[in-house]
Amino acid sequence: MTGVARLLGEVAHIGVDARGGYARPGYGDADRELREWFVGHAQARGLDVHRDRNGIVWAWWRPPGSSGPAVVTGSHLDSVPGGGAYDGPLGVASAIGAIDVMRARGLALQRPIAIAVFPEEEGSRFGLACLGSRLLAGGVQAERALALTDREGDTLAEVLRRDGLDPRHVGRDDETLAGVGCFVELHVEQGRGLVDLGRPVAIGSSILGHGRWRITIDGQGNHAGTTRMSDRRDPMVAAARTVVEIRDLARGIPDARATVGRIEPVPGGTNVIASRVSFWVDARHPDDLVTAALVTSIRDAVTRVAAEEGCAAALQEESLSPTVDFDHGLRDRLRSALPDAPELGTGAGHDAGVLASRIPTAMLFVRNPTGISHSPEELVEDSDADHGAVALADALEAVAGSAADGSI
Amino acid sequence: MTGVARLLGEVAHIGVDARGGYARPGYGDADRELREWFVGHAQARGLDVHRDRNGIVWAWWRPPGSSGPAVVTGSHLDSVPGGGAYDGPLGVASAIGAIDVMRARGLALQRPIAIAVFPEEEGSRFGLACLGSRLLAGGVQAERALALTDREGDTLAEVLRRDGLDPRHVGRDDETLAGVGCFVELHVEQGRGLVDLGRPVAIGSSILGHGRWRITIDGQGNHAGTTRMSDRRDPMVAAARTVVEIRDLARGIPDARATVGRIEPVPGGTNVIASRVSFWVDARHPDDLVTAALVTSIRDAVTRVAAEEGCAAALQEESLSPTVDFDHGLRDRLRSALPDAPELGTGAGHDAGVLASRIPTAMLFVRNPTGISHSPEELVEDSDADHGAVALADALEAVAGSAADGSI
Repeated sequence: MTGVARLLGEVAHIGVDARGGYARPGYGDADRELREWFVGHAQARGLDVHRDRNGIVWAWWRPPGSSGPAVVTGSHLDSVPGGGAYDGPLGVASAIGAIDVMRARGLALQRPIAIAVFPEEEGSRFGLACLGSRLLAGGVQAERALALTDREGDTLAEVLRRDGLDPRHVGRDDETLAGVGCFVELHVEQGRGLVDLGRPVAIGSSILGHGRWRITIDGQGNHAGTTRMSDRRDPMVAAARTVVEIRDLARGIPDARATVGRIEPVPGGTNVIASRVSFWVDARHPDDLVTAALVTSIRDAVTRVAAEEGCAAALQEESLSPTVDFDHGLRDRLRSALPDAPELGTGAGHDAGVLASRIPTAMLFVRNPTGISHSPEELVEDSDADHGAVALADALEAVAGSAADGSI
Repeated sequence: MTGVARLLGEVAHIGVDARGGYARPGYGDADRELREWFVGHAQARGLDVHRDRNGIVWAWWRPPGSSGPAVVTGSHLDSVPGGGAYDGPLGVASAIGAIDVMRARGLALQRPIAIAVFPEEEGSRFGLACLGSRLLAGGVQAERALALTDREGDTLAEVLRRDGLDPRHVGRDDETLAGVGCFVELHVEQGRGLVDLGRPVAIGSSILGHGRWRITIDGQGNHAGTTRMSDRRDPMVAAARTVVEIRDLARGIPDARATVGRIEPVPGGTNVIASRVSFWVDARHPDDLVTAALVTSIRDAVTRVAAEEGCAAALQEESLSPTVDFDHGLRDRLRSALPDAPELGTGAGHDAGVLASRIPTAMLFVRNPTGISHSPEELVEDSDADHGAVALADALEAVAGSAADGSI
């Protein structure tokens, strides 16, 4: 057994969301406690741990005789509000388990191995998913990122400072990336692909392109009792009509997805017609042009609906990630190491998708019997977690051991 | 000049809402600071101040020779989130101003005068409007009220305890009510009636029946990227469809009003299909049977829509206040005292409406040039505030001075 289930059991009490599941926003107390747990395990194994200037924690294993850019694995420890126990932590715990497995095997490795833990992958706090890997890869300008605010109105710069980082040193880090040969991320599957195939582990083929847009509708705040229906300019009604249209638009496009999961009326009182309603759209499609066309349709819809309701609407892109096909050379190596593993795409964004613009990346997915994610119902069986960690060890060994051919 | 504008100026800095207007939830810091401001002014005028077991603050003026049940005026100091400066505080400041005016006139009064300040009139914190007057009048069971929770999950019992009250003594208080002959509340108008009539002050005729219902829709939380549109049971879509239907239903009934101003998805993440969405409906109509029929239609709509979206819905009444016609005898006296004042109904709930079940009550409304309320745009001109305080003095004198005929 690889001990992955036991490792996850150690953190099952951290960041519990009172409404079910976990709430572990980036840079928060639960996130910090999880980071300390990871550092403890890495140091106990003699790994060389450091936190880089973007807040990414690295734990290096340099087997005797290894050299050159590292084969890196890892994932994240933050969660969406009400999230599951596996999205992120499974990849970190499996990375530890995989190093234990590789060490027990005692094989020579030509490349060093490292585990990376990326902050704010979910973007639950600052609205920008994969924030840590984006900063590392230069996928977001440091100035733009540092000015992002959380729901309390604190900027990322302030929050990083409180978390012990210097905002002046945040941003693209080519030196660190130069030490990374490739990145292989293990993650719980966020769908039913492996359940339907009856297999425990898959190799990732691609990540659906996706983005987030914030829509703000301004109307006229007023008293709920004294304002006649005909006199209203109610942004809540405009928002509601738009939410329904967004769903209908996405339904009409094969393979498209569009979701409104967050909505915030201002002021939000029961007996008050809102003056403003903000809500966020998450939209995805394998073809980036289709995603762009969907967002254009959404913009047209909200503009028209808002005007019909006497309101004004604005749509602002918060993030956009094109569809990522994982590196074909790296994928071939994983295929050789894991000949029984099927290949599956995913609709979810990952740090491996962001880093793909700079280095070869790949992913492994572990079966989730419920198929549900970003929910307390997300699940991984202990035996599948073991399968995953062993498969990750096999994959890392195949890549790190064959480094002599210079292909990584 | 009656000094009402100056009095309000003294509290203009208290409880400012960062998003505009004021946020002064009941029993909170801003509410307490406002209460202390009121107590200071009452004591400076030699009024006899005490806070009763329901948290209502009373300031008594017993002119020499006066006796019997008091003529009471007053209002509240709490606000909705993002509320205006006048809704509540105008009535309290005008009560102080009216006592100053009456004292300056030096007329004999047969009844004592008192100012009452009622807590949590808006119900913004515990979801039950006119909480203080309801407790006093027995309009809500103490046990039910004490178990209400605010957004932080604190019960009213805990909050009252922290605010210096003993929850065991909360509830219907016939002894206090026995000392009250009648209640005349001055309030900013929450509509354009006086603007259209070109008058500064009106006498209230009735309060529209109104209530609040909480609707909860349960669906299936899941990942926004990995869950196909056809596999979703998304409570946000069901809620949005219902919000639109509620508006359409209310539009179809003359004089009906229905508003959704508060909506809370769980967990509320951008890349998460919500597992639950709660939202609140404020519904009003002059005919209580029509309000009941509207709510039945809303219940039918949400049940149908939720089923169509694969979700389950529940609708729960949080409060219900029938239409109130103010006491005709008291209204006749006000009409004699203020022969130029028109009579206007209101769509807003007030403590005077709740107390009408136990004692004669009446209201005065002061012109609001914007017609907008529960919003930073709510406004009263200084000269209209003076008109209001003088009219209140005239009204109180007419009622208190004529007490000898035993009609109050």
